[in-house]
Amino acid sequence: MPRPDLHSTRERLRQGLTTASDELALARAQAESPANRDVFLRTRFPQAEAEARDARPDAPLAGLPVSIKDLFDLEGEVTRAGSVVLDRAAPARADALSVARLRAAGGVVVGRTNMSEFAFSGVGVNPHRGTPVNPSDPATPRIPGGSSSGAAVSVATGAAYIGLGSDTGGSIRIPAALCGIVGFKNTARLTPLEGAYPLSSTLDTVCAMTRSVRDAILAHEVLSGCRVARSDKPLSAYRLAVATTQMLDSADATVTRAFERTLKLLRDAGARIDEIPLAQIQDLGSIQATGGFSAAESYAWHRHLLAEQGEHYDPRVRLRIERGANMRAWEYLDLQRARVEWLQDVGAALSAYDAVLSPTVPIVAPPIADVAPGKERDEAFFRTNALLLRNTSVVNMLDGCGISLPCQAPDELPVGLMVWHGALRDDTILNLALHVERLLSSSFPN
Amino acid sequence: MPRPDLHSTRERLRQGLTTASDELALARAQAESPANRDVFLRTRFPQAEAEARDARPDAPLAGLPVSIKDLFDLEGEVTRAGSVVLDRAAPARADALSVARLRAAGGVVVGRTNMSEFAFSGVGVNPHRGTPVNPSDPATPRIPGGSSSGAAVSVATGAAYIGLGSDTGGSIRIPAALCGIVGFKNTARLTPLEGAYPLSSTLDTVCAMTRSVRDAILAHEVLSGCRVARSDKPLSAYRLAVATTQMLDSADATVTRAFERTLKLLRDAGARIDEIPLAQIQDLGSIQATGGFSAAESYAWHRHLLAEQGEHYDPRVRLRIERGANMRAWEYLDLQRARVEWLQDVGAALSAYDAVLSPTVPIVAPPIADVAPGKERDEAFFRTNALLLRNTSVVNMLDGCGISLPCQAPDELPVGLMVWHGALRDDTILNLALHVERLLSSSFPN
Repeated sequence: MPRPDLHSTRERLRQGLTTASDELALARAQAESPANRDVFLRTRFPQAEAEARDARPDAPLAGLPVSIKDLFDLEGEVTRAGSVVLDRAAPARADALSVARLRAAGGVVVGRTNMSEFAFSGVGVNPHRGTPVNPSDPATPRIPGGSSSGAAVSVATGAAYIGLGSDTGGSIRIPAALCGIVGFKNTARLTPLEGAYPLSSTLDTVCAMTRSVRDAILAHEVLSGCRVARSDKPLSAYRLAVATTQMLDSADATVTRAFERTLKLLRDAGARIDEIPLAQIQDLGSIQATGGFSAAESYAWHRHLLAEQGEHYDPRVRLRIERGANMRAWEYLDLQRARVEWLQDVGAALSAYDAVLSPTVPIVAPPIADVAPGKERDEAFFRTNALLLRNTSVVNMLDGCGISLPCQAPDELPVGLMVWHGALRDDTILNLALHVERLLSSSFPN
Repeated sequence: MPRPDLHSTRERLRQGLTTASDELALARAQAESPANRDVFLRTRFPQAEAEARDARPDAPLAGLPVSIKDLFDLEGEVTRAGSVVLDRAAPARADALSVARLRAAGGVVVGRTNMSEFAFSGVGVNPHRGTPVNPSDPATPRIPGGSSSGAAVSVATGAAYIGLGSDTGGSIRIPAALCGIVGFKNTARLTPLEGAYPLSSTLDTVCAMTRSVRDAILAHEVLSGCRVARSDKPLSAYRLAVATTQMLDSADATVTRAFERTLKLLRDAGARIDEIPLAQIQDLGSIQATGGFSAAESYAWHRHLLAEQGEHYDPRVRLRIERGANMRAWEYLDLQRARVEWLQDVGAALSAYDAVLSPTVPIVAPPIADVAPGKERDEAFFRTNALLLRNTSVVNMLDGCGISLPCQAPDELPVGLMVWHGALRDDTILNLALHVERLLSSSFPN
């Protein structure tokens, strides 16, 4: 039985059926459960309890618990981005702007969540800080997905209603898909990067995970400071596409089954869904052949720190950053230009559609044991990482937006359905996702 | 006696004292005068005459002549950017957006003006296309300044009321100063780059030269599509600064005399002017030590063309472009980041002021013979170029705006006064420049 979302808890608060303090106590129990040992790097329950007691129930987030990825500044604390090389950094002088907005809307920060070091990798393992365990499989410890690994588990287990994170190539949507919750990556420019460590200044997006689409809308409204325009357009009025190039390759049996079942469900409900090749996806390999944005942009940021403390980095992360050292300025500028041409080309190809549907990731979460830190598993790690990032990173290159929502049956491991499009289509994607979520929940009644 | 500006001619049109066709005939006589031989690369008088006959006198530009720097697309023509390597390029499929806006406002395009090859250099000499002669000195052929060299001479001699050009390091303001007219470089983001060849995608600004400040306001409104907010604030209410670091160094006697006389004139009229060091200007050298934006960004654009036709480039231009070949992506990204920090720092230092006053360039126009194409004059050319760009390029690095207006006495060679500030201070700068222009013209009555 899924946990209640923020909207339903807020309603119970209004009815006097619960209090913000009671909700915080439930969150604390999850955050402090041994099963969730590596989810938070630091919690702040004594302060959070005082804040919950003083919370205004009419505030949008009503004093309910939210978690903050270790990438973001919290006033007075050291931000470490899941690393050990920033231990001697100065404490932040102010909250990140996104944190400040969550707090101003009545969110109570329960702690900082674990992450892939410096937000590299979609796997979510961390050799310094441990790896949060995916709560979806009681039998086998599986990866949570990354980089917002702890954020996803905090939301999936009930330690937070909103997990603040970031998405540069899929870091919100991948863990949301693997942990069975909702992750929305908005168009990057709509939310503020101030007070978050950068990975790629071109691709970074500040965004959040939640337990429902309506909560994703609320979180996005709080983070962006903009209202999402609600639409009463019926599902049958949306023109939808399934992109066949690359996005469906190498899918495992669970993902294939869940994705096809969901397409049938949508079609049966009147949705018009075309298969289109969207062959431009194939060009991303050659566009990024000289190294992508993340390598060049993270090397520029890390190079002094690497020179001083390179041996204390996760070697898998260091390797990826150092790929950016030799890229020329003109190669970087060519990449920027090629990306703009590419996204205009894809935009034209998608102009007749309201959204594209794809599996968020082509596989269910693999066991942690297969990709845990250790040279002997590096090949499996990098292969898994590439597969996890493959579909989601298309949307980042597109400067677009996309939401992952769970579409597995109750007896399946979590599978994410990604609903996506280009820049500034956020409101359409969110309205459509409400339809899809409603259909899925009536198809798998609790 | 200075030529009438666009506003006064538009008034005479309204009174029936002249016609757009008569004005075009006067422009044609200047454009076809032997003294102005190298000002236009191509004219289009037959079509312009038909356009002038059909012009609506109530349009903002009233059918009056405008000139277009060879950097901009005109539908159906090959754009060469003052070079010979683009002779086989395809004709433009549409007007540049800035050209389209001038035409939509009633401007009649008389032709394409000469320029420094690919907009490199503030000197204005061109080994392929000849060098427009500065009209201010009948005795000695002097440089017009660049890169919008022909644009400046077209406006100064009466062949156009508005000269469309671009300013990456001073290419509007330098020739305006050396030729005795007005040149306004707006905040870059306010005007569209579409349909213009790039030099530096970070610093390029599309803007124009005119014969008066009120015409500069009109041209800016047409090019930006925005209204300039007029202010009736008196001169004494502006807080002005003179920056003493670097901006006054190596000034020649004419520039020093004109600049100091103008400061006295302003102070006598009630202006409050502080001397401030603005020592941050000194940091620009180290910020740009690994190569500036123009080198990296132009190399990315030119490298294929250089490989094919490098020997047909002006060797002085080629040398400057090739400096960008070895710059690393991280050096480029460091430069972008250092620029943002620098401009925030300068912005804080200038926050108490409405504008800064500086000589646009520290010298009057040198004779063409001193810097004409030829290896033996390369050292003089590069020294002069650096001096010409020194003050103006500070404003480009600041992402700011600045206007150059003539402040010389009738018996002096032209000297530009630059009134400038940071991003989006355009309206303040323009309103203040109206005050300064009014004071100067009452000080030197015609």
